[in-house]
Amino acid sequence: MRIPCSLFILLMIFAIPVSAQFPANGTKKGPAPITEQFAAHIRSYQQVVDSYKPAADDIMRLAQEDSVCYNRLAEMCDTYGHRLSGSESLEKALDWIIETLKKDGLDVTTEKVMVPHWVRGNESAAMVSPRFKKFAMLGLGGSIGTPAEGITAEVLVVKSFEDLKTRAAQAKGKIVIFNVPFTTYGETVQYRVNGCNEASRVGAVASLVRSITPVSLSTPHTGMLRYNDSVSKIPHAAITLEDAEMLQRFQNRGVKTVVTLKMEAKTLSDAVSRNVIAEIKGTEKPDEVVVFGGHIDSWDVGQGAMDDGGGVFVSWNALRLIKKLGLKPKRTMRVVFWTNEENGIKGGEQYALNRKNELSKHVLAIESDAGTFTPNGFEVKGSESTKALANAILNLMRPIGVNRIVDGGGGADIGPILESGVPGMELIVDDEKYFWYHHTDADTMDKLNPKDLNLCSAAMAIMTYIAADFPLHFPK
Amino acid sequence: MRIPCSLFILLMIFAIPVSAQFPANGTKKGPAPITEQFAAHIRSYQQVVDSYKPAADDIMRLAQEDSVCYNRLAEMCDTYGHRLSGSESLEKALDWIIETLKKDGLDVTTEKVMVPHWVRGNESAAMVSPRFKKFAMLGLGGSIGTPAEGITAEVLVVKSFEDLKTRAAQAKGKIVIFNVPFTTYGETVQYRVNGCNEASRVGAVASLVRSITPVSLSTPHTGMLRYNDSVSKIPHAAITLEDAEMLQRFQNRGVKTVVTLKMEAKTLSDAVSRNVIAEIKGTEKPDEVVVFGGHIDSWDVGQGAMDDGGGVFVSWNALRLIKKLGLKPKRTMRVVFWTNEENGIKGGEQYALNRKNELSKHVLAIESDAGTFTPNGFEVKGSESTKALANAILNLMRPIGVNRIVDGGGGADIGPILESGVPGMELIVDDEKYFWYHHTDADTMDKLNPKDLNLCSAAMAIMTYIAADFPLHFPK
Repeated sequence: MRIPCSLFILLMIFAIPVSAQFPANGTKKGPAPITEQFAAHIRSYQQVVDSYKPAADDIMRLAQEDSVCYNRLAEMCDTYGHRLSGSESLEKALDWIIETLKKDGLDVTTEKVMVPHWVRGNESAAMVSPRFKKFAMLGLGGSIGTPAEGITAEVLVVKSFEDLKTRAAQAKGKIVIFNVPFTTYGETVQYRVNGCNEASRVGAVASLVRSITPVSLSTPHTGMLRYNDSVSKIPHAAITLEDAEMLQRFQNRGVKTVVTLKMEAKTLSDAVSRNVIAEIKGTEKPDEVVVFGGHIDSWDVGQGAMDDGGGVFVSWNALRLIKKLGLKPKRTMRVVFWTNEENGIKGGEQYALNRKNELSKHVLAIESDAGTFTPNGFEVKGSESTKALANAILNLMRPIGVNRIVDGGGGADIGPILESGVPGMELIVDDEKYFWYHHTDADTMDKLNPKDLNLCSAAMAIMTYIAADFPLHFPK
Repeated sequence: MRIPCSLFILLMIFAIPVSAQFPANGTKKGPAPITEQFAAHIRSYQQVVDSYKPAADDIMRLAQEDSVCYNRLAEMCDTYGHRLSGSESLEKALDWIIETLKKDGLDVTTEKVMVPHWVRGNESAAMVSPRFKKFAMLGLGGSIGTPAEGITAEVLVVKSFEDLKTRAAQAKGKIVIFNVPFTTYGETVQYRVNGCNEASRVGAVASLVRSITPVSLSTPHTGMLRYNDSVSKIPHAAITLEDAEMLQRFQNRGVKTVVTLKMEAKTLSDAVSRNVIAEIKGTEKPDEVVVFGGHIDSWDVGQGAMDDGGGVFVSWNALRLIKKLGLKPKRTMRVVFWTNEENGIKGGEQYALNRKNELSKHVLAIESDAGTFTPNGFEVKGSESTKALANAILNLMRPIGVNRIVDGGGGADIGPILESGVPGMELIVDDEKYFWYHHTDADTMDKLNPKDLNLCSAAMAIMTYIAADFPLHFPK
């Protein structure tokens, strides 16, 4: 896309970072009020950005004309199932993706990534006294197993790490249950990630965490734990809100409960996986890259449709739309299907490692790993100037309701890229129910819909295409 | 409670049924507009009913002073678990209830009821082609089992009975999947109750129904089926919305799927159970009875906390409140813990059969089996005069937000009583999430709370106490 010379000069004047403070943590209502200086900065970008309005309109129109994105994601999820690192199903899904990407006429490459290979095996948990009650449960990723006969021990229910400290003397030889109500993911997930270490430190023989969710229909949620080398490893699993609350009530009533936990979980030698990379090469600056995508691996439950099949498929679909419209960006647009985000982030790390001398030419990195429900904006990590340009581009997306910029944007897969100073973004959506489904058997295609996936695709396509074609390097 | 003579005379004048039409199907916003004649009728009752205001206020105050109702229900649910007809846990829970009722100083009797004894046994379902995918599933109550090796057959997914008729020629030898989205319970549950018959009629070897729910977190819902003698019995089970939708997508894509269903389900000889009956004897007319309660049996999943532990426990609590306040109604107030509502209604039938010559002296029957979330009114089945009196009584409950009367009120357990012309009611509550939990492992104590149970208890206590003490027989 060509820019009139006068606009280009105007743009150069404003391409210096401004000192105006960008509003942190914008709300759902849209961006917070901004200073006049900053507003002027946005307006300057807007004049250039507005020249992309015809392309943006084309993208939004074409994006909503079919259900290719939904149908492809459904076909992959249904045909191959969930996609845990090290599994055959992940690699089969990748083979199918590569084949299908080529049908779109996109340039496809892969790069080898060694990934952790944790396997769940058979597992079960049950209250065995004062009566038998089987628990719905999921071992946590990375957990060690139990002896074959399981671990049977009296239960100690605690409501926080603080509470565990207070009751430390009672924990020895027990199975500690962290019955912690969901507040925010960031806060509550600490009990999943770190509960085993704190329980082990006070002599527990195993630990169980109430699943990290605000809503449960007897729904266990898996996810990663992180063993601390300073304490011995104990098995760690998630039980449901329902069962954690029942154990709590027994304890409050002064009734001792005993639980048996059996887990075959183990970590095998690292396995071979791949990042899959699809591109539209830049016409003028092919070595300058706008990279975007999501992770293709998932937990070994549900279909990994929301987390993160949707995220990486809307990225793919964005690239397909650009190709189909015949748009030829100056810089390279690159979609990455990162592998192993869930239990290692080895895909993201390998990507950055393989390009350590090229990252300075990455102009923007965008991740979609926050769900693909109705999109409403982008999180942005970068300078005020980055945010101002992003905000200007958002104006073109108003017809599809994508209209807010909030601070943030450091997704796990793009984290290693952002460390070198590349601006980062994350697509954000109406995510009220995200943690209902997260890491469960309910993360399935029925939770998504073609319309939302198309809108997410359009938002990703507009943002990445303009960044790739913009007269200037996306401001750092 | 004594009524001034002048009011009593006024009441007699108005106790003749009026012809004004009571508004059918009231909405959440409160009763629909009523005619002036009907309004006058309500006002006449109101004068007498208002004399019960001090008692009603006492009930509402006392009801909210403790958490006895919640704590007792939790203790029973946690200690004994779910309570399917024929199970040891149901009878143990009944023993505990009888003992605890006596501690409340209530008159307690039991009556023998022979109940169906269906046992689930081990069960499983899985897609075995084009890949293996285990299903979350629940056999449906009353279903026959499969041969030990299971039934393995190709799948035919249908969207309605109509759709099945259209595809009848394809059904022979298949497992029919009824993938029917939830509209209303009454409409959608037909596929659970009757799907096996329609599938069998066209030659299916088994049938699976998408669980009857608007919301699923990979949540199977059990419930009763009803075999039709005109066709051969085939096994019938519920799968999740997620898996039904996946099978649908495979079929839409032209991919054949094969499912293996294994069920040990069988129906044993009828078992002995009991209705438990607790009373406050009437001071003037002990043979005239206001009967209320719910069912104490449940499905063999979750805790039966909502369905219908809560319903029968708020009834019990209502009686406890009357007793504790020292109120002495003229007529007998009787709470029944009906057994076997879920898969037979034998408790309700036996109750009516044992009293066929006494039902004419039952002045009112109330059931609570629609959940015990925040109460908002009563369904009423009866004459205009019945509804007018109920409406007048509701005025006393406005402080706790119970303010609507809608047509209905024929609960399953009181059905056999209502057949003889006794007016009937059902407590109604904010039930948006009722079918999320209904007949699942998520029907647990954490879905209820002490405050709601107390408000439900107060509403039940006020309605039943005034009916039992009213100067006139509750209008038929």
